[in-house]
Order: sequence, then structure tokens, then C-alpha cells
Amino acid sequence: MSFDLVLRGGTVATAAEVFAADIGITDGRIAALAERIAPGAGAREMDVTGRLILPGGIDAHVHIDQAQSPGAAAAGAAMADGFRTGTTSAAFGGTTTTISFAVQHRGTSLRDAVADYHRRAEGNAVVDYAFHLTVTDPTQAVLGQELPALIAAGCRSLKVYMTYEAMRLGDREILEVMAVARAHRAVVLVHAENHEVLTWLAERLEARGETRPVHHARSRPLFVEREATHRALTLSEAAGAPPTVIVHVSGAEPIEEIRRARARGLTVVAETCPQYLFLSEGDLDLPDMEGAKAMCSPPPRDAASQAACWRGLEDGTFDLFNSDHAPYRMDGEGKLRAGPNPPFRRVANGIPGLATRLPLLFSEGVVTGRIPLTRFVALTATNNARLYGLAPRKGTVAVGADADLAVWDPERRVTVTNALLHHAVDYTPYEGMRITGWPETVLSRGEVVVADGVLHARPGRGRFLEQTLSSAYAEAGRWI
Amino acid sequence: MSFDLVLRGGTVATAAEVFAADIGITDGRIAALAERIAPGAGAREMDVTGRLILPGGIDAHVHIDQAQSPGAAAAGAAMADGFRTGTTSAAFGGTTTTISFAVQHRGTSLRDAVADYHRRAEGNAVVDYAFHLTVTDPTQAVLGQELPALIAAGCRSLKVYMTYEAMRLGDREILEVMAVARAHRAVVLVHAENHEVLTWLAERLEARGETRPVHHARSRPLFVEREATHRALTLSEAAGAPPTVIVHVSGAEPIEEIRRARARGLTVVAETCPQYLFLSEGDLDLPDMEGAKAMCSPPPRDAASQAACWRGLEDGTFDLFNSDHAPYRMDGEGKLRAGPNPPFRRVANGIPGLATRLPLLFSEGVVTGRIPLTRFVALTATNNARLYGLAPRKGTVAVGADADLAVWDPERRVTVTNALLHHAVDYTPYEGMRITGWPETVLSRGEVVVADGVLHARPGRGRFLEQTLSSAYAEAGRWI
Amino acid sequence: MSFDLVLRGGTVATAAEVFAADIGITDGRIAALAERIAPGAGAREMDVTGRLILPGGIDAHVHIDQAQSPGAAAAGAAMADGFRTGTTSAAFGGTTTTISFAVQHRGTSLRDAVADYHRRAEGNAVVDYAFHLTVTDPTQAVLGQELPALIAAGCRSLKVYMTYEAMRLGDREILEVMAVARAHRAVVLVHAENHEVLTWLAERLEARGETRPVHHARSRPLFVEREATHRALTLSEAAGAPPTVIVHVSGAEPIEEIRRARARGLTVVAETCPQYLFLSEGDLDLPDMEGAKAMCSPPPRDAASQAACWRGLEDGTFDLFNSDHAPYRMDGEGKLRAGPNPPFRRVANGIPGLATRLPLLFSEGVVTGRIPLTRFVALTATNNARLYGLAPRKGTVAVGADADLAVWDPERRVTVTNALLHHAVDYTPYEGMRITGWPETVLSRGEVVVADGVLHARPGRGRFLEQTLSSAYAEAGRWI
Amino acid sequence: MSFDLVLRGGTVATAAEVFAADIGITDGRIAALAERIAPGAGAREMDVTGRLILPGGIDAHVHIDQAQSPGAAAAGAAMADGFRTGTTSAAFGGTTTTISFAVQHRGTSLRDAVADYHRRAEGNAVVDYAFHLTVTDPTQAVLGQELPALIAAGCRSLKVYMTYEAMRLGDREILEVMAVARAHRAVVLVHAENHEVLTWLAERLEARGETRPVHHARSRPLFVEREATHRALTLSEAAGAPPTVIVHVSGAEPIEEIRRARARGLTVVAETCPQYLFLSEGDLDLPDMEGAKAMCSPPPRDAASQAACWRGLEDGTFDLFNSDHAPYRMDGEGKLRAGPNPPFRRVANGIPGLATRLPLLFSEGVVTGRIPLTRFVALTATNNARLYGLAPRKGTVAVGADADLAVWDPERRVTVTNALLHHAVDYTPYEGMRITGWPETVLSRGEVVVADGVLHARPGRGRFLEQTLSSAYAEAGRWI
Repeated sequence: MSFDLVLRGGTVATAAEVFAADIGITDGRIAALAERIAPGAGAREMDVTGRLILPGGIDAHVHIDQAQSPGAAAAGAAMADGFRTGTTSAAFGGTTTTISFAVQHRGTSLRDAVADYHRRAEGNAVVDYAFHLTVTDPTQAVLGQELPALIAAGCRSLKVYMTYEAMRLGDREILEVMAVARAHRAVVLVHAENHEVLTWLAERLEARGETRPVHHARSRPLFVEREATHRALTLSEAAGAPPTVIVHVSGAEPIEEIRRARARGLTVVAETCPQYLFLSEGDLDLPDMEGAKAMCSPPPRDAASQAACWRGLEDGTFDLFNSDHAPYRMDGEGKLRAGPNPPFRRVANGIPGLATRLPLLFSEGVVTGRIPLTRFVALTATNNARLYGLAPRKGTVAVGADADLAVWDPERRVTVTNALLHHAVDYTPYEGMRITGWPETVLSRGEVVVADGVLHARPGRGRFLEQTLSSAYAEAGRWI
Repeated sequence: MSFDLVLRGGTVATAAEVFAADIGITDGRIAALAERIAPGAGAREMDVTGRLILPGGIDAHVHIDQAQSPGAAAAGAAMADGFRTGTTSAAFGGTTTTISFAVQHRGTSLRDAVADYHRRAEGNAVVDYAFHLTVTDPTQAVLGQELPALIAAGCRSLKVYMTYEAMRLGDREILEVMAVARAHRAVVLVHAENHEVLTWLAERLEARGETRPVHHARSRPLFVEREATHRALTLSEAAGAPPTVIVHVSGAEPIEEIRRARARGLTVVAETCPQYLFLSEGDLDLPDMEGAKAMCSPPPRDAASQAACWRGLEDGTFDLFNSDHAPYRMDGEGKLRAGPNPPFRRVANGIPGLATRLPLLFSEGVVTGRIPLTRFVALTATNNARLYGLAPRKGTVAVGADADLAVWDPERRVTVTNALLHHAVDYTPYEGMRITGWPETVLSRGEVVVADGVLHARPGRGRFLEQTLSSAYAEAGRWI
Repeated sequence: MSFDLVLRGGTVATAAEVFAADIGITDGRIAALAERIAPGAGAREMDVTGRLILPGGIDAHVHIDQAQSPGAAAAGAAMADGFRTGTTSAAFGGTTTTISFAVQHRGTSLRDAVADYHRRAEGNAVVDYAFHLTVTDPTQAVLGQELPALIAAGCRSLKVYMTYEAMRLGDREILEVMAVARAHRAVVLVHAENHEVLTWLAERLEARGETRPVHHARSRPLFVEREATHRALTLSEAAGAPPTVIVHVSGAEPIEEIRRARARGLTVVAETCPQYLFLSEGDLDLPDMEGAKAMCSPPPRDAASQAACWRGLEDGTFDLFNSDHAPYRMDGEGKLRAGPNPPFRRVANGIPGLATRLPLLFSEGVVTGRIPLTRFVALTATNNARLYGLAPRKGTVAVGADADLAVWDPERRVTVTNALLHHAVDYTPYEGMRITGWPETVLSRGEVVVADGVLHARPGRGRFLEQTLSSAYAEAGRWI
Repeated sequence: MSFDLVLRGGTVATAAEVFAADIGITDGRIAALAERIAPGAGAREMDVTGRLILPGGIDAHVHIDQAQSPGAAAAGAAMADGFRTGTTSAAFGGTTTTISFAVQHRGTSLRDAVADYHRRAEGNAVVDYAFHLTVTDPTQAVLGQELPALIAAGCRSLKVYMTYEAMRLGDREILEVMAVARAHRAVVLVHAENHEVLTWLAERLEARGETRPVHHARSRPLFVEREATHRALTLSEAAGAPPTVIVHVSGAEPIEEIRRARARGLTVVAETCPQYLFLSEGDLDLPDMEGAKAMCSPPPRDAASQAACWRGLEDGTFDLFNSDHAPYRMDGEGKLRAGPNPPFRRVANGIPGLATRLPLLFSEGVVTGRIPLTRFVALTATNNARLYGLAPRKGTVAVGADADLAVWDPERRVTVTNALLHHAVDYTPYEGMRITGWPETVLSRGEVVVADGVLHARPGRGRFLEQTLSSAYAEAGRWI
């Protein structure tokens, strides 16, 4: 056998096992895994002795180049990352596939939004990408024609918001989207916070002059998220139980709702994010606007919530670990668009995280022994691939899969600085964290895209990925 | 590359993915997985086009050749299967590793029991095997010397019984075993039924003349299992939370206890068995002694319990699916030892299931689309391997792993008959079931042990497997 | 001592105890309870030997003479009972106080609605009455001026609807009403069903031609109620936890939400109604429009739900047992206003129950021994009085309380017929039920209003009752 | 009407209402309650203007004069209070009925124990008393003859222990006692702590030299109580669900078990005690042996547990509030019998509380407005009377009831000192607490037993009370 590229001497991890193997890559795909590939078999060879070879991460919760940001708070705030910097930052952090959101704007066509979003990606992405569809205006045309066509065209995951004035759907609209999802076998992602409660709380805080970043957190207590989670899962129950993803879960109460819904027989997929493990409300309670760097929704909470999220990662409650990357700069184009010291309701929600997602969890989860390496792979790559119809091509190290690989030095000590992250945001909320382990070399379809801190990829090499049927849809005779 | 054996053209499934690959086997291990292995590379070749190649099953809950059966009910009833027929039956059902129980008898040494059990296995097993240690008399010698030594020698899973007069431990004894497990990093398996409640109920039934097999089920209502499950998990909580396996879970109430314990932060592994999916109390309520063929503990229950167990397999609550094979014949040596029509308390508990475990779940779970094939592999092989310290050598199809493989024809229609099963038991409770899918060819360490309904293995070729540290024990720097 | 009236020889029941006592009444109030009141002490005497003397029932969930019926379904359907027949029917059934709803209509003033409702009652009521305020348009004027003034004027209970197009409030409006309730120490009653889900389900049924009365029940599954209950209690949590009444609870799932909210520290009061004990979905599934006689919201459900409601009465989960009397005739003015065979969405929701509430629960709850007589009194009178600020004047048999008394023959066998009920509705869903126990003689403020099946009261004698602070509001130094 | 005694001008509270009334007492019973009793109608009159007249408390969880103390820890420690001082202390604290434990000792007859206990009470008690039966050796004679006879003779409540070496029953023994209770309609009280777990934890603490009073608390974590509570309620489920009292509940986890059991349909009565509201683990963590003054089982816990217990009182989860008075002196006869500085396992468990029970809850619960006065009465008197078959004679202020009354000055400021309590114990754990409200005058059967801090009662005037059928047993035709 001969190969375009051979990785020799590494330790390979999948969601199922960890094993020593040489990897032979041809035509961008993994052609062979073997105890020993004959010397010289590769046109090019790479010695990865002492390194871990993981499937490149899939970050299935990414906001980049959204034409308009989500809701009043962010209105007009510009997303700093387009596909070029966004996918570059992903690659530097060991992630080789992004799934970002093609967002419909009210009164416009979802199909047009997707077409537009394709244009934004083309010529820019350095790694492969898929799209979720964010539905904000489920007209009969959208429900009856556009969604079925777009699902058929490979966008099999639909996002609905229960909050943000410009994006949120009412319960009935969510039901209708879910029913379409069920009928056409798409997956539904839900941002679950009760809009009316949090708005009311925010206004009362504001009326009392409590407008600092920390009050953002106080306007969205855990019960706001618990309520919406329970409601979303009731809607799923009513709509025939399409597979439903509760994204960015932040604490024990919504987790309990998820467990209860599963016990009722629903298919509920649960996601958490780094900010719920590594940040807390205290990070919003810093002098000046420093706290705005940790403002996202749901907000980071307390130590008990962090512990509940860790436990959920350990015990299998969470299936997915994504970043919810939302790239707003700390300047007049981004978070401070409403002035140098705006009230929290005028600060864009969201924090960057594409590049830090994997290293943070690797260091604090895997290196500490808290989470097995196999589960790390499952949470950050394989489960996303399976759920969002990218498996077996993405998300694993297996014969026939794309050679999207991250070569990790598991012992490398790194201090997180924004410069390492290669996004267009001017800060990271994790600045200064000392971690262990880093993805030194990253391959996408057999091509080295990052090595030794240098980007080697041409913008535009990244390709759009059509999602196939999600593993959450049982189908006789399909092996998944 | 050249190989001892090449399997060509199959579709391989692991717990993480399903992919087309040729498999090259050398020295009993998987040396290569490749899109295409060059023609002639194998000293021997096998065309497996159109077939699924699964890791050979691991059945981690097997009773064979136990010197004395568990408790008064079975006292004296002979187990029909020793290692020879037991592992043969396993192989015919696609299972290539068994973990059975080396049982201490009260007043004797556990070390001696293990030594004796080794002797029973040697020269007989046709596939590889490991041992759980059943502790029935946790003396200071057992706790202080024997268990640490035996754990170090590769028996890293300890079984305790909360019922059966001859085997059960008191709460304090369980605590002591669990504390040793915790200290020496072993896993604890618990048979959770409240002995005093079920005995009291049984005696009251008996006093009313209600002694038919169906009354066995009525003497062990679900609350008997719920109570013991909650208690066992409280003991685990008190003992420092060693990974604790609740075996043979039969319905919603104990499942709820398991979920609650996980939410408290415990490491709880949950197992269910075919009898809780495919049998019900009605199968015990048949004329004559026919119902005795479905008598096991906990008993099969009702449709709601079956549904709860299916849901637990689907939603990830259950990690393990094992048989609890307990081979008693329907004759004077086995279930009818106390006469042709004995009261239920004198009928040995337990049913055979080694050979039917995989085909039943494959047909009713995978072929129907209810459970993904990857989860089937996880439930029946990989998770057992990881939990019980046999990974990555067993339980997956990966480079470096033992070539323990089952070649399934996923479309073959089979009517279950006892003759197919090759155990020494004279019945199967699943007689006559029509299923789809069957493991036609089974390899153990690269050697064909079963093909076309014929055993090709020499008794004694099976080897004892030393368990390494369970994946349930987090350890910095260990990749698992 | 001398009295206007002495009741001699009866057995008195309160929420706390049952005891033999003579009762001396003067000026409409209970002046004395004594082992034996001297012969001749009463200007009038009544021998009640062998009879139970209970406090007259308080029915705190009554719809009478509402100008417009609740929501589209009932739009235009006329309520058959005004205060004259409504309070008469109450009296015949042993109830001496009603609390009905003064309903604001959107775009109009709540104060005017109350003034109008006073006019409807005056000159008509035969027993005393209070008003809940149904808020359907919480403008700043309503929230800021009208509600505080009306609360101060003795309407201390506010009703909000989560469904019915014409009446329902959004989450934020409910929050605002609850916040006013909290600030002015009123109680909030919630009709908890998710409007959007049930509407969507109803439309889908309708689209399939499933429009019979039974489909009304199928359009409102238990999860519709569970969802809204959880949401309502989250709103209460957000609004500072005003005492919140979940009215007409129909099954186990909303009950569980109530228990969970209590465990979180909320003050939640739970009410169930006769229809959830004595009717089921089967009663809606009868030929022709017969099923319409049992149509109400939430709908009667199944045996498991009935059992859950009984259990909730027995174990103290429910505090209140009221009728939700909604008097629509089975004619062109009432349920059949849209024609002789209308689709379920055009049939007015609601069933009559003022007169049957107490006898049904007495017979099936108390006579059977299922519920102690003291709890019957608590559920049907005392708890309503305390919660809705009518204690200690109403709802008990105590010195100083109004002599509102029902003299029950606990052994009388009665077959329920509509004629017995003296309402203006032309049917009862309980027609033909055979029950034991009946309130033979009923006194209001010492005056016999019903005796031997004859009304003795003058319309207009009933008085409006100002509610005082609810017992649910703790207040230092107030003994309640 | 003329009376032996008239109380004039007071405010009367029952479990149902609070009202102004004069009270006429004749032959030790309440003969009349009236707005105004004619001047001179009483042979003796008492002006109670401005005072609250409550039913005398019933303390249904009292240890006095137990021949042998409960279990090894207390072995040999003498109870300081016999019936003379015990009932005197009760009276000083506003309690006019005690229910203490007639304790069987293993190997002896329960009947003899009761006879002996009668002798201990006779001639000593200053207020009335009943007995629970503590079963420690449920032989066939006890189960088959003694218990039925004793129940028939008026001891209708059976206590079982799940811990204390000398007293505890196994699960099966508890089942047998429960089955007898069910058959003969008695109530079962359970001390629920898992003996084996707490013993094991205690021994491990001891082995590490952690033997101070605070380690007593650490040896009995909340899960020890949760486990036993769940188990006890499963036993009740198996035994046909006799009414089961979980005594001295100390925190949220056992409360949750109680709620779950109620939802399953069991009749579960829940009791908490002052120590779980007013003491915490910190009180055991004081210098020298000071912490021993707060040692009881279950131990006082943390602020969250206190809050959970308060919430349970407020929301109706708890039915009973009793003292668990266990009178050990801090001397060589009592807690320090094993020396001046004994390890915690040799210190008798239990604290005094008969006299402080009512004033503490009145001050911190009622005066603060946290608990309505009616609920205070229910928790401390009426519910005990009803459950333990003393109603309507005891536990309320009603015509025909015994004139057991406590006249409270609700505004009196008191600093708790041991001297106020009139027990024979040499300390109170509440020394120095400043409270509001005190029972100034206490009557038993119409006789003033305490007034102005002076005892006026003759020892021996207290009478044994035969329990009638508990209100927890539904019975057709019995009004309760």
C-alpha cells in the first residue's frame, strides 16, 4: 500500500478506544490504520511519536458572520469573525469542522438567507463547514416549501430561539417548526430562556439603576432557563418528539428537566459549553466593563452550577460540548457600541470560544483524569458528527473518514493569551489560564492547515458539508 | 503488508462508527484496517462482502460451573454448563469473551475459590474469559489480604448479593467490600433485591398455597428491587463512591433510583438483560411447570417495565446489556430437583441466555432501527471491556485489539430453537421466536471458532484475561 | 342565656373536630356552643338529633352571570345562572357562600366590571358572596390604580387565564399582576393550560375532521396542563412568590409540579373539582352531543388521573375542593348555540356543579371513610374561608362566626336528578348517580334558607363579603 | 347555665380558627363556648382578657423513666425524668398530655413492660398520659397475643427502631410488626437511620481518633436517614400500608422520600422536632463536652436542613411537632457516665425539650408570622390527638373536650433558663434564648396545674388515656 501521507507512531483516540497505530492517508481520507505501515509507504511522512491523534473537533454551535446579531442587545454590533478568521481560529484550536447559523431575518426568505450565507463562506473558510438554519419567521412558505427543500439540500438542523426580541418564536411557531422537523427528519436546537420573565426582571433591575454586567446574570436566574427548558420539551412532546437539542445548558435545574423528559420517552440531546465550567457570575462582577467580557446567555452561574455541569459531562447527561462562539470585540463596533459604559441590556451577548473549547476541556477534564479521552472525543467531535449527519465522514478516526486530524502534545504547558487564538476578537475571557495539552498540528482532509502556530491553509479550501440523516432518527436497515 | 488472515469487503462497526474496511489480522490481533488491502496480502482470506463485522460480544454476567448454586432455592441444583459448553454457546451467539463468577463459599477462602475456578476453566474454555469475584464471607483475611491480592492479579470486579440466603451480605459487609474496592480501585457489582421483604412475601404466598412459578414474580414486586437499589447506592455513597454496577435492572422504579444517584454525583453503571425486554410475568403464568422456564430474579415484569427498559437502552441510562446466563435444566438435576411440581421457592432461579443475548437485541433493537448499531456494540461489548478493564484489547475492532470478531448476516431469518444454542440446557425461554440477523462466523484471536453452525475450536484454547484498571477510575495521564 | 334560635342535639363538625353540641344563634351569629343549652332558651328551636351540623360550604370557584363567557368557544353562549338561581342552587347543595368572578373585558375598566357585577348580584343573591377579580387587560391604570383600590375594597383574589383567546394573559402580564398581588397582599388564581399547544392540537384534530366532544379532551392532554402549571409557578417564583392557587388540577403531572414548587419554597395552593373525581374522558365519548355535557377545561381524564386526584385529597396535596360551576344549557342559548351538532371548538366549555359538589364528595369521600369529615369541612369550607379572607366569619362552626350551617342527614339515600339541583341549567352530568347523605336544612346567618327541598329565602338577602387579608400572608401579631 | 369555672375574655384558638369566646367548664370538660357567659355563672371565674387560650399541647414523642436507655451508647445512663418531673415540666411548657414509650426489653414480655410502665406512671403524673409500645423482640407471642391485646387495651401506636443495638429490628421484624398494626389498626412509628452504615462510619471516625461530640453528627450524615426512611416506607408498602409515622425528620432528603411515598399512595405521617429548627451541627462542635448537650439522633444539621424543616412546617409536609424529650443529665449518671470526656459513642443520645417545645415554636414560628396560630395548634396538639386516638377528648378547645387549656401571654418576653423548665435535667440546649410568648396558666381537666410559675397539681392526678382508633384509619360511618 502507498499513501499520500503517513502519520507514524502516534496514539489514536476515537469515541470508542485509544490505540497505537500508523495512519495512511490518501485523497484526503484515511485509507489505512495499521500497527505498522511499511517505511516509505507515504509520499510524505510525519513522525507523531508521543503525540495523540484525535479526530479534528467539530464545533456545532458557532456564530460567525451573522448579518445581524441576535436581538436588541446586540443590534448593530458587528461580529468580528467571518468564515476566514472564524475557521482559522477553529483550526488553531484543533477544530476542523464548524456548524454555524444561517439566520433568517423576519420578513425575509430563509432560502435567501442560506444562499447569502453560502456566499459569505465561499472563498473564506479554511476548514469544512455545515449550517444550522435559524428560523425566525416560520411563514407557510418557509414551513411548507423552504424548510423541506433546505433539509433535503443538507441543512438538517433547525434552530429556534425562545428569547431575543428579533429572533424568538412563540410556542405555536416552535410547534410548527418542530412538526416540520419531525416530518422531514431534521433535528431541532432550542435556545431555552423565558423571554418575558427575563425582560421583566431586566427592566426592574434597570429601573433601579442596576445596569452593570453582573446584573445581566441577575436578570436571567436559573429558573428562567428551567422554565423554558421544560416548555421546549413539552412542545417537543406535543409535536411528535423530534430529536431536540437543548443548547448551552448551564446548571442543575434545566438538567433535571432534561432527565425528566428522557424518562418520559423523549429524545433530548443536551449541550453544555466551556463558559459554564470555567466562568461564573463573579467574572461579570468586575470593575469597569471588564465583566462584559464574560456576558453571554444563559450567563455563567455559581460553583454549584459548574459542578452540576461537570457531573453532567461525567455521567453522560451531556452529549455535546460546543463553544457558542459569538465574536464581539470590546470596542465601539462590538460590545461597547452603545458607548464606553453601556447598561447591560445594550451590550451584545456572547463570548468568543472557538479556539479555547478543546484545550480547556482537555486540560481540565482529560489531563486531570476527570473525563476519559474517549468521552472527550465523543463530546467534542463524534457525537456532533452523528447527531448532525456528518458521520462517518467527520468526527472520528476511521478508515474511509476524512483525514481531519489534530495532533496533540498532551504535555505541553500553555498560558492562554488572545494572540494564540487567531480570531478577530480582541480578548478572550480565559486570558492567563495555564493549561496542559495543545493541538500542535491540524489536518483537514489530509492537508496540514496549522502547524507550529502557523496557518498553512488557503482561505476557500473549506467546503460546505451536506448533513445526512441524523443518528437520532432510527431507521431500519441503516447502520449507524 | 502481509497478514495471517484478511477479511475483505465487510462493513465494520465499533461503538463509535460504522465503516467499510478490509481487516488484516496477524498473530491473533488486528494489524490493519484499510479501505483496500492488496489482493494476496493474507495467507488466508475471507470474503465478508455484505456482512457486518462486529467486535465479538463480551458477556459480563454469566454463571457457569458454579460449584454451588446461589442460595437455598437452587441448593444442589446443578449448573448444566461448564466452561466447555458455556463458552461454546457464547461463541455460537457471537460472544467471544465471558466474565463469570468465581464464588466464595462461606467459611472458605476466596483465593481458594478463584484457584478452583481457574482449574474449572482451564482446558475447557473455547474463548477467552475473565472472572468476577463473588464475596460471600468478607472476613478480615478476605478484606485485608485476599481481595487486594486478587485485584492485583486481575480480578478487578467484586460481586455482592443482597439476597439469597447462602450468599447475601449485610449492609455493613457490603460497605467493607466497597471500601476495599474503592481503595484498590475495583468495581462493585450488586444484585439488589431486599431479601427480608421478598422472603416474607414468599412465605405469605406459600402459606396461602400460592406456590406456582408465577408466584415467584409476585413475591418480588418492583419495590423490592427499588428499595435495594436505593440502599446499595447509599452504601456506595457512604463508602466513598466506588464505581457501582446495578446488575439486571428490570423496571422504571430502580431506574429512577439510578438516575437520582447519578445526580448526587455517584458513579453508577446500569445493566439490563434480555429477559426484561422479551419476557414478562405472563411467561411465568403458564400451565404445569412451563412457567419455571422464565423464572429468574428479578422476575420479568409487565409491559410498562419492558418499555422502561427499552427506553433506558435508547436514552443511555443503561450502559450494559448482559445475559445473566444461569444454566439449569428442566429436569431432576436442575429446576425440578425437588420433584416434578415443586413450589416456586424450591425451583432454581435463573435462565439460559448466552447464545440468544446478541441475536435478540440485534433483531428487535437494531434491525427495527430502535437502537443504532454503534450503541448495540457499546452495550454488548465495548462498555463491558472498558468498565471491566479489558479494553482496548477486547470489545472493539481497532488496530492492536484482539481479532475477536463476529461476522453477522444482518438479513438472515432465524427461528430460535434450543438446538441452535449449543448450551447444555434443555430449553430456551425464547423457543420459536423469529428473528432477523445472526452471527455466522465467529473469530477469537484471529481463529475461526464457529462457522456455519459448526464449532471449530479446541476446548482449552480460551485464555484467562487479567483485568486492568477500569475506565470508571479516572487517572491522570492514562488515555482511555 | 337566650337565643334567637337553638339547634339542639346535633353533631357538629369543623375542620378540627367533631363533637356533640347544642348551638345557640343570635343576630345571625353563633353565640354559644354548649353541651346542653337550657330548654326554652331559644326563641325558636330546632331538633337536629342524629344530624350532622356542618359549616355551610364555600364554593370559591363559581361562574355565574358573567356578561360574556370565557373565550371564543363560549362566545355568545349565555350563562343560565345569575345570582338568583346560582346562589339558590348553592343553598340547595349545602353551600352558603359563593365566590364568583367579576370579569374585566379587554379595553374596559376592571373597576367598572366590578361595579357592574355588584349590580348583578344585588337584589338577587340568596346567600352571601364575594368576588374574585378576573384580569384580562392589565393596563397601567388597572395595575397601578384599580387593582390596589379594589383589593383595599375587599376583592383580594385575582384570577388570570393562560388560555381562552379573549381572556388569556401573556407571561409578562401575569408577572405584573402577580407583582401587584404580592405588593398589595392579594392571592392569585391561575387557570393553567398552554394555550398555543392546545390550539395547535385542536386545529390539527379539526383538520382531520375529529370534532366530536371527546376530541376536546384529546386536544388538551395532561402535558398541556403540566406545562402551564410549571410555568405559572415559575412566574410566581419570579414575582416574589405571592400565594398562588392552581385551580382545577386534573391529574398526577400537574400535581407533581405543585409538589416540586412547594419544595422550592413557594406558597402554592391546589384545588381540584368533582369532575376530576367522578367523570372521565369516556363521558365525553358518548353518542350525539351527549358528551358535551361533560366538556370542561381541563377535561376529565382517565382512571389513573382520578386516582391521583383522590390521593391528593387524602394526603393533603389539595387544599380546596370547588365546583368550577359554569352553567351552560344544552340548547341554542348554551352549548348548542352554534347548531345542533357543533364541532367541539364551538361548544362552550364548562359544566354545572354548584349543588352537587358537596353531596358527591360527602357520599364518595366521607361516607366511604376515604376522607375524614373534618377534612371534608376543611376542603369545602374552612380552607376557602381562610385563604380568601372570609375567616373566621365564614367556613366554620365557632362562636362569633356567622350561623351559616348545613344540617345533613348522613344516611339519606338520594338519586341525583337535575330537578333536585335548582339551577337554571337543563342537565347535570351526574344524573342518576346514587349517593348517600344530603343537606336537608341550610341556614344563612341564622336564617333557614332551604328546608325540605323548599327555598325559604328572599332573593337579595345575600350580602357582599369583603375579603380580609388571606391566611397565606403571614403577619406578625395577627392570629389566624 | 352554671359552670365550675369560667374563663372570661380570652381569644381561643383551635386547629381551624381563632375566635373570642368565654369558656364554661364543668366536671373537667368544656361545657360551653359562648360570646358571653353570664356574670356569676361560674363557681370560679378567671379573667383571661388579652390572653390566648390554646388547647394544652400534646407531646407525642417523650422518653421518661425508661428502665433502660436506648442502645449501647446510653446503656446504663439514667433518665433524669420520671413521670413526676417529666409531666411537671410538660405542664410548665403548656403541654397537658404526654405520650411516652413503654419499652419492651429483648427476651421479656411486652405486656409486662407495659404493666411495669403503668406502675411507674401511677401516682406520679400530674397531667394525663398515653403510651406508645416500643417493640424490640417481636416473638410470636408478642405478635400473636400481646400486641392485639395491648392495642385493644388502648395502646394503638407501635414504635420500631432501625438503629440502636439493643432495640433495633431487622426489616423482616418490622414487616411483622407492621402487618399486626395493619390487621389491628394501630399506627407504626419508625426511628429511621441505617444502623450498619452509621456504625461503620462511627467506627472509622473512632479509629482515626475523631471522637468528639461533633463526630457524632458526622457519623450520621443525612443519607443515613434518607436510606432508612425510604426503606421503612418500602416496608410499609409491602405490609399493606399501615399508617406510618417517620419521627424526628431532620432535613430535605428524608422529606423528599416522604413526599415520594405519599405520591405512591402510602399514608405517611411526618414529625419534626425543635432541635432541627433551632440547633445545628455547630452546637455539637463546642469546647470540652459542651457539644454533648446537643447530641441527639438524628443529629441537628446545617442551615439548609433547618430551612427545609421550616418549609415542611409551613407547607404542610409535617403533621407533627414533638420534642423527643430524652432527659440525660450532664453528670456521671447521665451523659458523662463513661467519664468526664468520653468518646461520642459512649455519650447517651438525646436532649431535653418537653417544656421548651411550645414556647420556641410559638415565638419563632407564630409571633414572627411564619406559621399561623391554627397550624401551631394543629402541629402541637390536634394532629397528635387525632392520629393517636385521643380526639376529640384531647387536643382541641371544643364542647365536650377535656378542659386541658394553656393560657398564653403572647407578648411576654422570656429568656430561657433551665430553672424555668422544671425538669430534672441540669441543662437545656436553649439556655439564654430570648423568646416572646409564654403559657402562664395551664389547666388539665379544668384544674389549674400551673399558674405564675408555681405547680398546683398533685402528683398522681394524671390519668392514663386509652387511645381509640386513629383518624388515619378510614372507617365508614365514623365521623372524625
